[in-house]
Amino acid sequence: MTTTRPGGRSARVRSAVLRAAGDMLAEQGFGHLDLAEIGRRAVVGKTTVYRRWGTVAALVADLLDEMAEESLPRTDTGTLLGDLTANARLVADTLTDPRQGPLFAALIASATCDERTAQALHQFYETRVAEWAPCVEQAIARGEVPAGTDPGEVIRAVSAPLYYRLLTTATPPDHTVADRAATAAAVAAERGVYVPAE
Amino acid sequence: MTTTRPGGRSARVRSAVLRAAGDMLAEQGFGHLDLAEIGRRAVVGKTTVYRRWGTVAALVADLLDEMAEESLPRTDTGTLLGDLTANARLVADTLTDPRQGPLFAALIASATCDERTAQALHQFYETRVAEWAPCVEQAIARGEVPAGTDPGEVIRAVSAPLYYRLLTTATPPDHTVADRAATAAAVAAERGVYVPAE
Repeated sequence: MTTTRPGGRSARVRSAVLRAAGDMLAEQGFGHLDLAEIGRRAVVGKTTVYRRWGTVAALVADLLDEMAEESLPRTDTGTLLGDLTANARLVADTLTDPRQGPLFAALIASATCDERTAQALHQFYETRVAEWAPCVEQAIARGEVPAGTDPGEVIRAVSAPLYYRLLTTATPPDHTVADRAATAAAVAAERGVYVPAE
Repeated sequence: MTTTRPGGRSARVRSAVLRAAGDMLAEQGFGHLDLAEIGRRAVVGKTTVYRRWGTVAALVADLLDEMAEESLPRTDTGTLLGDLTANARLVADTLTDPRQGPLFAALIASATCDERTAQALHQFYETRVAEWAPCVEQAIARGEVPAGTDPGEVIRAVSAPLYYRLLTTATPPDHTVADRAATAAAVAAERGVYVPAE
């Protein structure tokens, strides 16, 4: 008698297919994804890939869902500047990683062309922002920044210069850029810049 | 006797073809550009388009060159915060414009897939940054921000949150976001955040 574990096999298939899709996005960029080729690379039958995901856009959305699920937990250093610097360096390390950097650029490019991908991308960043927002909530509780400070805006202010550099300049975001982004966000937050006007 | 003005005709052809390419990028996004179709929309012979530009990437690079040439001059309000706010609102208005917003998203997406487009995009942003850098130089001269402040970093800090919002969230950057980005950059600049470490 054979024991079948559809959950286990299903999870393995998903993992292999999403890994292959991420590799192809990182290597060739957006626009070259093809379900049959992804199946070949993942050593998963084409029929399985088509039945489970149907379209490239659905598969990319699932990849973003998985990335959100596996998103690293936040750091807690005890100060806002420490926490934001840890976050900034994590983002910078991701965007300068030889696989992750091109992958994120390709995902952002895909989202400009497809509404479903855009929604999955927005959800991924909302998950990331929600993971790190408690840094700011704790800073409010410690009195480091004014009450009413919008935690999401502070977290986004840290990432923005790093993504902007990745997408619009020839120089990838290093730790110098990361530390500067964290310091700028902390300084502006202390001054109440991220408290919405009444 | 007919008077031929090759410069005038050549400039009109370039203008019509780049306009058609920009329209197609804004409407359909990156990935659908086709030189023959651009020629049809511009009412310019296919042979002319192929001879002059050769590839879609070369045409997109030329579009970015034209955008840099036509880049609006900076505002001079007399204060750093006033200048940065004017810049931020200009960027926000561009990114929320029904044609310009999708066009910029498509150009950034194109640049992730093609080195020549990426170089032209980087050059476009360097031109923009250089146009606005004197705001910061004047603020240094007026004593608003410390000597040694990197003007380019301040200008990039203003744009970054607006592009980040365009590309990673469902909410386009409005004037509230623009004003906050300008204030955050001004506050951080005053505190010396954009003076490179020795």
